[in-house]
Amino acid sequence: MIEKLCIKTDSKIVLLVIDGVGGVPLNGLTELDKAHTPNLDALAQKSITGLTDPIAPGITPGSGPAHISLFGYDPVKYEIGRGVLEALGVGIELTSRDIAVRGNFASIDKNRVIIDRRAGRISTEKNKELCQMLQQKIKMIEDVEIHITPGKEYRFVLVLRGDGLDDNVNETDPQKTGEMPIPCRGEPVCSPKPEAEKTARIINEFVRRAEKFFSPPADGVLLRGFAKKPDIPSMNERFKLSSCAIATYPMYKGLSRLVGMDVVETGTTIKDEIETLKNNYKKYDFFYFHIKKPDSMGEDGNFEGKVKMIEEVDSIIPEIERLNPDVFVVTGDHSTPAVLKAHSWHPNPFLLYSKYILTDEVKKFTERECAKGYLGRFNAINAIPLMLAYSLKLKKFGA
Amino acid sequence: MIEKLCIKTDSKIVLLVIDGVGGVPLNGLTELDKAHTPNLDALAQKSITGLTDPIAPGITPGSGPAHISLFGYDPVKYEIGRGVLEALGVGIELTSRDIAVRGNFASIDKNRVIIDRRAGRISTEKNKELCQMLQQKIKMIEDVEIHITPGKEYRFVLVLRGDGLDDNVNETDPQKTGEMPIPCRGEPVCSPKPEAEKTARIINEFVRRAEKFFSPPADGVLLRGFAKKPDIPSMNERFKLSSCAIATYPMYKGLSRLVGMDVVETGTTIKDEIETLKNNYKKYDFFYFHIKKPDSMGEDGNFEGKVKMIEEVDSIIPEIERLNPDVFVVTGDHSTPAVLKAHSWHPNPFLLYSKYILTDEVKKFTERECAKGYLGRFNAINAIPLMLAYSLKLKKFGA
Repeated sequence: MIEKLCIKTDSKIVLLVIDGVGGVPLNGLTELDKAHTPNLDALAQKSITGLTDPIAPGITPGSGPAHISLFGYDPVKYEIGRGVLEALGVGIELTSRDIAVRGNFASIDKNRVIIDRRAGRISTEKNKELCQMLQQKIKMIEDVEIHITPGKEYRFVLVLRGDGLDDNVNETDPQKTGEMPIPCRGEPVCSPKPEAEKTARIINEFVRRAEKFFSPPADGVLLRGFAKKPDIPSMNERFKLSSCAIATYPMYKGLSRLVGMDVVETGTTIKDEIETLKNNYKKYDFFYFHIKKPDSMGEDGNFEGKVKMIEEVDSIIPEIERLNPDVFVVTGDHSTPAVLKAHSWHPNPFLLYSKYILTDEVKKFTERECAKGYLGRFNAINAIPLMLAYSLKLKKFGA
Repeated sequence: MIEKLCIKTDSKIVLLVIDGVGGVPLNGLTELDKAHTPNLDALAQKSITGLTDPIAPGITPGSGPAHISLFGYDPVKYEIGRGVLEALGVGIELTSRDIAVRGNFASIDKNRVIIDRRAGRISTEKNKELCQMLQQKIKMIEDVEIHITPGKEYRFVLVLRGDGLDDNVNETDPQKTGEMPIPCRGEPVCSPKPEAEKTARIINEFVRRAEKFFSPPADGVLLRGFAKKPDIPSMNERFKLSSCAIATYPMYKGLSRLVGMDVVETGTTIKDEIETLKNNYKKYDFFYFHIKKPDSMGEDGNFEGKVKMIEEVDSIIPEIERLNPDVFVVTGDHSTPAVLKAHSWHPNPFLLYSKYILTDEVKKFTERECAKGYLGRFNAINAIPLMLAYSLKLKKFGA
């Protein structure tokens, strides 16, 4: 429905995503409670606030669905396959002819029984070497190009690029030691499409050649998460937003490309990202500004590190405010409490600044304060409609 | 689901809709903040409160969908066409055989190019005259009755009444000057239904005769918003509510009729409406009591006028309380901030009084106070289930 209501205007929206910013208390305080954030707190005072559930109450999202929802797309409808997410994570630009696959180097014995699903966690260096060797040996199977890209430790990404491929095939990884890799077959097994059968055939040939070629501890490969790039209408098509992504990590650049954002070049630091925002501010209506570090610290269980990273984010808030965006939103994609060392289901603090708001009494950008805000608790998929409304980019529904 | 749970009881519900009551701040205060409303505030203290989104967060509704939602109907499923709403607005009682159309008198040159889509905004008086003349000339086309009713300035409502008509036809109004009126055709163009083709044929003949007949500046007509009355089950069928509408403006009477309410006669003032409520109180279970003026003031950008109108509404609250309804709800259909001079997406303050509530700490009927209420932020479509529940008109779901 919202697509019919969108209008193109000159107003500007900045969506600042502090990855994994939400936490749970350690000795009574969350990372946001503990961080000294005078700028975020001042902004919260003149904004409206709330809490968002990325998917639904209680659901812990991966980065893919969490972002997709925040970009205004139904994360259940637009599911992003594991292979695709891995490919985005290592910076591969996928085409519609590709099947992306997540691969593990594994240790298997002479009877093809899996001894170690991670090949003794070989080093990233060793991984690069293996991928390079493998790529040299296997460039094509039938008429399909084979692309092998190393990830971290034992992980790699396999991309099959060609015509007539289909991701309806079973995974070769039994996800257990003591079993054999599973032969790949088209699915459903009773009546697979020829495209799925072709894909399975190529996968089996890839596995055969890889096993022949390698030596311990990485003497086999396990493949899973076969996926095509989802067909997602762009933010421009749906919301008439000319949009731009400023992110330092490949996965977030890739997610932005999936929804049709322009990914602009930036450096590796938050300061670089701010410069990029300033330099591109005239060119776009919508800016997705991603900050990764608080999430990484949360995943590492580094509570104090996450506090520091949040304080670093706080220091750049005035620079964004100086650009005077019509709508400025600060939120997370999901929570990553250091206490849990993982993504969590806790809702995200959310803050929206615009001229057309009724400020609430919330004076700090923390989980508990935002829970008292004017926006209440809402699903993150409504963030985009709210940003569009508060920047006067939506027409009336009905008469 | 709710339909299966409704039971008929003697309890009474009053739904007071203060049209467009919500606002945004001017110098820090909204119209409700500024208004002196001792009665509404006292009622808020002994009620539960919340904020409602008429359609969804960020969506600005027209009066049609906003009311439909508040009456407990999905406004996307029961979409009310523009022509129907215009017809309701001028007090036409539509039948199921009608196609209602919104018309403009327009200025077109001798090559049939549109010079002015509003015929120089001719006066309402002139409009009445033109409609009367046109109606005398065109009473039937084929076997279809033609009804022409003047609106304000250059607007009129055309109703085609007959058998075998269909609203799947294109609009003749290109919504641009410098272009010609578009010939009407059945849709989809590749395979229109005979009913749509018949409707298009009658429309084209109407346009031809109207152009022949008129003179500058109103020498043509532009038609859009072709629509049949939607087929909506009544509130009695759905909720077992014997319901009554007290409203002074035709559009709201019309919307009430669409959901099967009895529209009772009333005068033009709020005092008249109160008398009507008292006189009809024994006869019905559910009373929709509509007050139009705050919305009109908001649309005019008249902040102080809207404040005064809200104060006038406040003065009648004790009279409604004296009737001792089992459930008394006060809310808006949508917000109309004077600052924006238009409907807006801001959620509506909502207050519900009943014997069976857990009062919250809210002590004033304002947007910001209601944001802190027990009911939280919810979709207006849930207002009817809440009213039914708190008046003990709903059975248990499941065993």
